[in-house]
Amino acid sequence: MTDTASSYPLLRTINTPAQLRALPRTQLRQLADELRAYVLDTLANSKVGGHLGSNLGTVELTVALHYVFDTPHDRLVWDVGHQTYPHKVLTGRRDELPTIRHFGGISGFPRREESEYDTFGVGHSSTSISAAHGMAMAAKLKGEARKAVAIIGDGAMTAGMAFEALNNAGIAHGGLMGDMLVVLNDNDMSISPPVGALNKYLARLMSGKFYAKAREGAKSVLRHTPLYELARRFEEHTKGMVVPGTIFEEFGFNYVGPIDGHDLDSLIPTLENLRDRPGAQFLHVVTKKGAGYELAEADPVKYHAASGKFDPAVGFVKSTAPAKPTFTQVFGNWLCDMAELDPTLVAITPAMREGSGMVEFHQRYPSRYFDVGIAEQHAVTFAAGLACEGLHPVVAIYSTFLQRAYDQLVHDVALQNLPVLFALDRAGLVGADGATHAGNYDIAYTRCIPNMAVLTPADENECRQALYTGQRHPGPVTVRYPRGAGVGAVPQSAMQAWPWGKGEMRRHSGQAQTRGQGPARIALLAFGTLLYPALQAAEALDASVANMRFVKPLDQALVLELARSHDALVTIEDGCIMGGAGSAVAEVLAAHGLTLPLLQLGLPDEFIEHGDVPKLMSLCGLDAAGIERSVRERYWPATSVPSAVNQ
Amino acid sequence: MTDTASSYPLLRTINTPAQLRALPRTQLRQLADELRAYVLDTLANSKVGGHLGSNLGTVELTVALHYVFDTPHDRLVWDVGHQTYPHKVLTGRRDELPTIRHFGGISGFPRREESEYDTFGVGHSSTSISAAHGMAMAAKLKGEARKAVAIIGDGAMTAGMAFEALNNAGIAHGGLMGDMLVVLNDNDMSISPPVGALNKYLARLMSGKFYAKAREGAKSVLRHTPLYELARRFEEHTKGMVVPGTIFEEFGFNYVGPIDGHDLDSLIPTLENLRDRPGAQFLHVVTKKGAGYELAEADPVKYHAASGKFDPAVGFVKSTAPAKPTFTQVFGNWLCDMAELDPTLVAITPAMREGSGMVEFHQRYPSRYFDVGIAEQHAVTFAAGLACEGLHPVVAIYSTFLQRAYDQLVHDVALQNLPVLFALDRAGLVGADGATHAGNYDIAYTRCIPNMAVLTPADENECRQALYTGQRHPGPVTVRYPRGAGVGAVPQSAMQAWPWGKGEMRRHSGQAQTRGQGPARIALLAFGTLLYPALQAAEALDASVANMRFVKPLDQALVLELARSHDALVTIEDGCIMGGAGSAVAEVLAAHGLTLPLLQLGLPDEFIEHGDVPKLMSLCGLDAAGIERSVRERYWPATSVPSAVNQ
Repeated sequence: MTDTASSYPLLRTINTPAQLRALPRTQLRQLADELRAYVLDTLANSKVGGHLGSNLGTVELTVALHYVFDTPHDRLVWDVGHQTYPHKVLTGRRDELPTIRHFGGISGFPRREESEYDTFGVGHSSTSISAAHGMAMAAKLKGEARKAVAIIGDGAMTAGMAFEALNNAGIAHGGLMGDMLVVLNDNDMSISPPVGALNKYLARLMSGKFYAKAREGAKSVLRHTPLYELARRFEEHTKGMVVPGTIFEEFGFNYVGPIDGHDLDSLIPTLENLRDRPGAQFLHVVTKKGAGYELAEADPVKYHAASGKFDPAVGFVKSTAPAKPTFTQVFGNWLCDMAELDPTLVAITPAMREGSGMVEFHQRYPSRYFDVGIAEQHAVTFAAGLACEGLHPVVAIYSTFLQRAYDQLVHDVALQNLPVLFALDRAGLVGADGATHAGNYDIAYTRCIPNMAVLTPADENECRQALYTGQRHPGPVTVRYPRGAGVGAVPQSAMQAWPWGKGEMRRHSGQAQTRGQGPARIALLAFGTLLYPALQAAEALDASVANMRFVKPLDQALVLELARSHDALVTIEDGCIMGGAGSAVAEVLAAHGLTLPLLQLGLPDEFIEHGDVPKLMSLCGLDAAGIERSVRERYWPATSVPSAVNQ
Repeated sequence: MTDTASSYPLLRTINTPAQLRALPRTQLRQLADELRAYVLDTLANSKVGGHLGSNLGTVELTVALHYVFDTPHDRLVWDVGHQTYPHKVLTGRRDELPTIRHFGGISGFPRREESEYDTFGVGHSSTSISAAHGMAMAAKLKGEARKAVAIIGDGAMTAGMAFEALNNAGIAHGGLMGDMLVVLNDNDMSISPPVGALNKYLARLMSGKFYAKAREGAKSVLRHTPLYELARRFEEHTKGMVVPGTIFEEFGFNYVGPIDGHDLDSLIPTLENLRDRPGAQFLHVVTKKGAGYELAEADPVKYHAASGKFDPAVGFVKSTAPAKPTFTQVFGNWLCDMAELDPTLVAITPAMREGSGMVEFHQRYPSRYFDVGIAEQHAVTFAAGLACEGLHPVVAIYSTFLQRAYDQLVHDVALQNLPVLFALDRAGLVGADGATHAGNYDIAYTRCIPNMAVLTPADENECRQALYTGQRHPGPVTVRYPRGAGVGAVPQSAMQAWPWGKGEMRRHSGQAQTRGQGPARIALLAFGTLLYPALQAAEALDASVANMRFVKPLDQALVLELARSHDALVTIEDGCIMGGAGSAVAEVLAAHGLTLPLLQLGLPDEFIEHGDVPKLMSLCGLDAAGIERSVRERYWPATSVPSAVNQ
């Protein structure tokens, strides 16, 4: 760990934004430099990584915002929020930064519980304008003089809800007009490279206005970037073009920009000016992801998030041990193989090409690959339109982000029974990203929808076969799989469809035993990757184990057979218990008048914070030892003392 | 019923759009006139009403689209779809129009199962551009020459997903560019009067371009409308303004318009021109809701949907019997009363002022009323922002439309445990609107979210008290209630909060009886308005009845007590069984190791089509007779023959 005191002499004196505001303006450059170095050094020493590029890009903007605005009285709402490490450092959490994203440490996103400076909890994109507009209107209604500031990236601007918010925030309601500022942090990059017409539009704005500024400001950091070159060429191409009112002005905002988001001498007076104006203000700043760190500037996609050990001098350090393939990679390989077999396959991602494992597919099948930007609603209904014409779309989407397209799933896909396959990555707990990104609810919120099928493969090979099974099904299907690797079951290249709606037995309990007063024969019904800890626990418990594979259609025959041949059942899933797969089993038992004891294991009814997934799963009692312990406590309390597993 | 043959001589000869295209263009005016008269007459004779105003407004546009495009080879995607009665008449469903929205009759919305001309099932707004873009890209990928046309209203354009679609449809993907046309049907009115910046923008476009056209075309229907006057005054105000490229052009579309959407001589050549151009085309037409029917033109909000008997000559015929107040009215009254008590109350509607019963609140508390347009996502996160500042927002939203803001509910409200009250109207089956509008899933998709409370009042007075209870709770709450009236329980003006998480006993079973081999004592656990049929059934069954009131937090103590004092339980709810309130009861029983028989009554796992609610509920076995029958069949098969109820 680097020594804060000696390496960051100015930064170590700043414990609150008020202290920052007391600095002479001339010291802000040094503060920004120390802040950038501190963030970079801290992430380099972090075991869990973080969003490197975006945080380096917002250093000066963060300094300027806290310098100009009276935080926390004025409200800063950071969109997405993974760019708030500098903000956290400046708002009293400097010394906690090394704990970021670690279990028990500070969150990688703003959280209201963590600090009064975190005015709104974020994680998913494009919520900031709506939230800040709410705060601004509340201030008006309460007669309080404060500003609300939303800081939103160009990638986040493509989501519909940002547009919905713009459409409301720029006009008066009931005679009141909120005082708010939207800062568009235009770094030409969300996670994957930018797509869509809006991005082209922003590039045009930049060419028309920003270029002139950048050309004049010799010390501008942007002078030496590819953006500058792009703008120069564009300007030559459109010589004499009159830049009209921007679309932001059409929405009722006073638009200013673009300005250089790394130049404090531009940022501060501009923000001061906008702070003092009432109503809806819009500032367009241009920043560079990874600014000040050469390797990150050169490859912003790679350095968007530092998800492994890296050395500032040489970048990411390659692990020597060959890693097991992740479920994401299994999906990516399957997608390419399937596309070769099925010319009607097309694939859609809402701005998650890398995260969803689609880089190779994009390269091999560019016309069958659609990155729609951060636009989950459109992604799903667009898929429905493709499916209407006989194509077989695969929507690759994280469990947590499918929540953004729930109505489209219900209304446009399921109701019309269209063959769209949802490859649901990051199902269950996701680790360092925490509660905002957890995929805990998808089983509950998909299985209640008619026509939906819900598949839960148990390992990497099952994932490949489940995707194949889902792709061949003539209706909507979700195949859910967790972040990271599984047990390491090598996917067989041959693909074979699962029998539809059928689970399989993986272990048979031995003869009935005498175990005091508890039920003798127990069956564990596992959904998804928890099959493996269930199998481990079953050894100690001598329980039967079924790999259920389908939450819907549930293998009713198997459930009934297990119910009749056992004295008690246990369901196991890495999703919420409420309304989850265990409830589906309970419904079948109830419908058939079967009344044996049922223990439902899964995620509890609470939001689970960030941390190492195995540790969190253990805390939730969902590792082998926890499963064994829960079964013993419930069914054989007398035998529950020593665990035979994990010793 | 009017005689089609004699009154509509030309219309009766048109059974397919091909026949329409064979007509000389000079006959189209007559056809449009007959079509308008036929739709108006048919709705006047309809018992279930329909979307009168929008259908009268699209007569000429429908004629022109089928005349110019080669339907069904070219794909027409109607946004929302309640304006497709003329389309249905021209595509072989003329004689079925009188059955529209009736049980077993044609749907009030396009449905793929109903006709090959209905290319995409709709009902919720703003999906058409995404779907048509999917169809257009599929045609390119398959090498088929066809056009996809999205017809979307100005109200629907405010939803974020329309913007997401525009952002994608106007640019090439993987080297391919879809051939599509977006027709913006600008009638300055969704359901409630228009709001938002986009609407003002469209008015500006109109003033700049449309006005000039309307001024010249003496026969334009628009010459004599308030729009014309508005445009004229606006033009005077902005004399000399240069209308720059529209925002639609910024999105990559070729923009044409505005043109008069009732003038076939403008529409047809313009559409022909656009049909023959490749890529993304955008046509802005201006129409008038209720066009050609004076009463509807004068009061488009009232005539948006004819939801009762009306006589074309005098308009709506007032019912002589005093109607019971609807749950919507109960909510509206509560909202005004509560606002008086609680100055921190603010209320938000996504474009449903009338439907949600908020007209009086808007009048009395204009600054505390927010109509955000069709923008459910923004509505919810905006509410979260208001709640962060100590206000207590009420989001009035239909169950089916909350699906549009599911992620915002999870991520922005529940995760932060903010006190936002969701007044969930139209929960359960909705009748004539059918499956697209059914509120069948909200119990399942809300109860799985941590921190959410889910309240199910049983009648009008309970609704008022539940809303009060929810408003006082320091976290997120949904209060769900159905469309229409309940049993007629007059709301008490005094408000008293329910004990939190507590149900109440409404009937106690008599002494245990001998009933063959079945369980003797049965308890019915009713959630919501099905309490009353449950009470009726309980008389015949001599069952206990609990009014559960809370799905979450569920009254576990009551469930356990009922389980211990009875031989079998029955849960009853007007939501999907899968993951619903009955499953919550099953989870509690399982968690406590209780194993008595449980019968879960609710809506089946299928999409239920339009029809009279009592009839549909009876078909689902959720009236008193059905409840009694199900209980007997399940628990006392020997006694299940004659029903004691409803005789």
